[in-house]
Order: sequence, then C-alpha cells, then structure tokens
Amino acid sequence: MMRRTLENRNAQTKQLQTAVSNVEKHFGELCQIFAAYVRKTARLRDKADLLVNEINAYAATETPHLKLGLMNFADEFAKLQDYRQAEVERLEAKVVEPLKAYGTIVKMKRDDLKATFTARNREAKQLTQLERTRQRNPSDRHVIVGNRVVCQEMDPYSKPFYLFQFIHFLEKESKS
Amino acid sequence: MMRRTLENRNAQTKQLQTAVSNVEKHFGELCQIFAAYVRKTARLRDKADLLVNEINAYAATETPHLKLGLMNFADEFAKLQDYRQAEVERLEAKVVEPLKAYGTIVKMKRDDLKATFTARNREAKQLTQLERTRQRNPSDRHVIVGNRVVCQEMDPYSKPFYLFQFIHFLEKESKS
Repeated sequence: MMRRTLENRNAQTKQLQTAVSNVEKHFGELCQIFAAYVRKTARLRDKADLLVNEINAYAATETPHLKLGLMNFADEFAKLQDYRQAEVERLEAKVVEPLKAYGTIVKMKRDDLKATFTARNREAKQLTQLERTRQRNPSDRHVIVGNRVVCQEMDPYSKPFYLFQFIHFLEKESKS
Repeated sequence: MMRRTLENRNAQTKQLQTAVSNVEKHFGELCQIFAAYVRKTARLRDKADLLVNEINAYAATETPHLKLGLMNFADEFAKLQDYRQAEVERLEAKVVEPLKAYGTIVKMKRDDLKATFTARNREAKQLTQLERTRQRNPSDRHVIVGNRVVCQEMDPYSKPFYLFQFIHFLEKESKS
C-alpha cells in the first residue's frame, strides 16, 4: 500500500517535470520567434518611413495636381506606419515581455520540483527505516509515531498540500 | 527674332532634360525602396509562418481546450500570411516591375532628347550660315529658301511637332 502511494507520487512528480520542461521549451521558442516577428515589423515600418520621405521629396518636384495626389498617398501611408508602431509596442509589452518572464517562473518551478523530489526520496528512505524498526520491535509504537511526525515536520515539501497547490498553479497559468 | 526663337527652344529642351533627370532620379529611388519594402514584407511573412508552426507544435502537447484555442489562433494567423503573400505578389507585379520598366523608358527618352539637342545645334549653325549668305547676297532668294527646306528635311528631330509629341507623352505619363 505504502509502496503504491510512493510510486503514484513519483509518477505525478515526473509528469509535472515533463509539463514544466514542455512549457520551458515551447515558451522559449515562442518568445524568440515573437521577438523576431516584432523586429521584422519594426524594419518594415522603417522602410515604409523611407518610402514616405521619398514620395514627399518626389511630390515637391511635380506639378500641383500630381503633387497633391502623391502627398495625400504619403500621408495615409505614414498613418499606417503609426499603427505599425503601435503594433510593435503592444506586441513587445503584451506578448514578448510576459513570455520572457516565464523563463524565470519556469526556473523557479523547476527548483521547487527538484526540492520536492529530493524531499520525497528522503521521506521514502525514512519510511523504510521506520518499517524496519517496526518489524524489529512492533510493540514500541510511541517511538515509531514520534519519528514519523518529526519526518513530516522537517520537510515542508513532503506535505501533499504543497503538491496540490503547485498543480493548481500550473493549471491556472496554462488556462490564463 | 530668330535668335529669340532659338533661345526659347533651347530653354524648352533644357527644361525637358531636367524633367527627365528628375523622373530618372526619383523613380529609381522609389523603385529601390519599394523593392526593399516588398522584401521586408516577405520576411515578415516567413517569420509569421514559423510562428504558426511553433504554435501548432505547442498546441499538440497541450490539453484539449487550450489546444483548440491555440490551433484556431494559428489558423487565423496563417490566413493573414496568405493575404501578406498576395500583397507581396501584387506589389511586385503592379509597382516594382512598372517602376523598373521606367528605367528603360527614361533612357530612351534621354537619347531622343540628346538627338533633338544635337539636331537643334546643327540647325542653328546652318541658320547662321544662311543668314551670312543672305547678308552677302540678299537678292539670291531661291538659294536661301532651298537651303532652309533641305535643313529641315534632313533632321526629323528639328521639327517642332516632335517636341510637342514628347511633352504630351511626359504629361500623360506623369498623370497616369
């Protein structure tokens, strides 16, 4: 019974580790490609600004009718570039920065998971020891219970509550 | 009177030369910047295609609800890239190619103008000669008129009609 509980817990921890690795890999890729997309958009905006300047320069040398038409076109095209600038700023602030922040979050969660895993292993060893003590002297109940309480108090990570909290966090983050 | 006509014609030719040089300079610049704008748009489309692939790859590893949302987003984003592809093709065919063609047109017109200018100079010299002949022997009218007719027939570029035609062409082109 105890062995099965331990195996279940280990499987759960491994599943979480896989989930964290998956998020780390894909969010990293997404962050890089989004950043490149933003840079390319910014370069397109710069090229379009050059085009606006050149159209205005050509318009200045032309007859009034053509000049007016060209300048109107340049004005509208310049407005499109203002929208493109807003797009660059928003993508930077609302997509690239949050994805970057995930780098740190994932690292923290990976450390937490490692600590949980270590604590779980330590607990398993201590439980095996307790089992041995119990087999050697089954009547010495107060020593066994006392040891068990000490084990759980030493390791905050070994509490099931901590794991539930973390699973809940991951689910909430992946939904948001 | 004849001197003034010649000066007028020269001024007109110079004006046309300036107009051709202006079109050559600005259309060249516009062609280059438009081509660069098209290239940048194509690169943005490529980056967005990468993004679509990566979002699909991440979606494949996620829970059904999140997967559906991500794949819908990737689909819509891919459609936007199809529009961007159409933009690239249209700009290439309707803007860059016609601007490129202007390179050859402008070169031809510059050669024509040069020929006109040379013919004008030749005509001026011949008129000066005629003037001299007239001053030497004012009564020899049939020789003078004959010479004049030969001058004009030799040089198709010296006919005012040719200039009008060319001015008309330039105006039509700059309006279209």
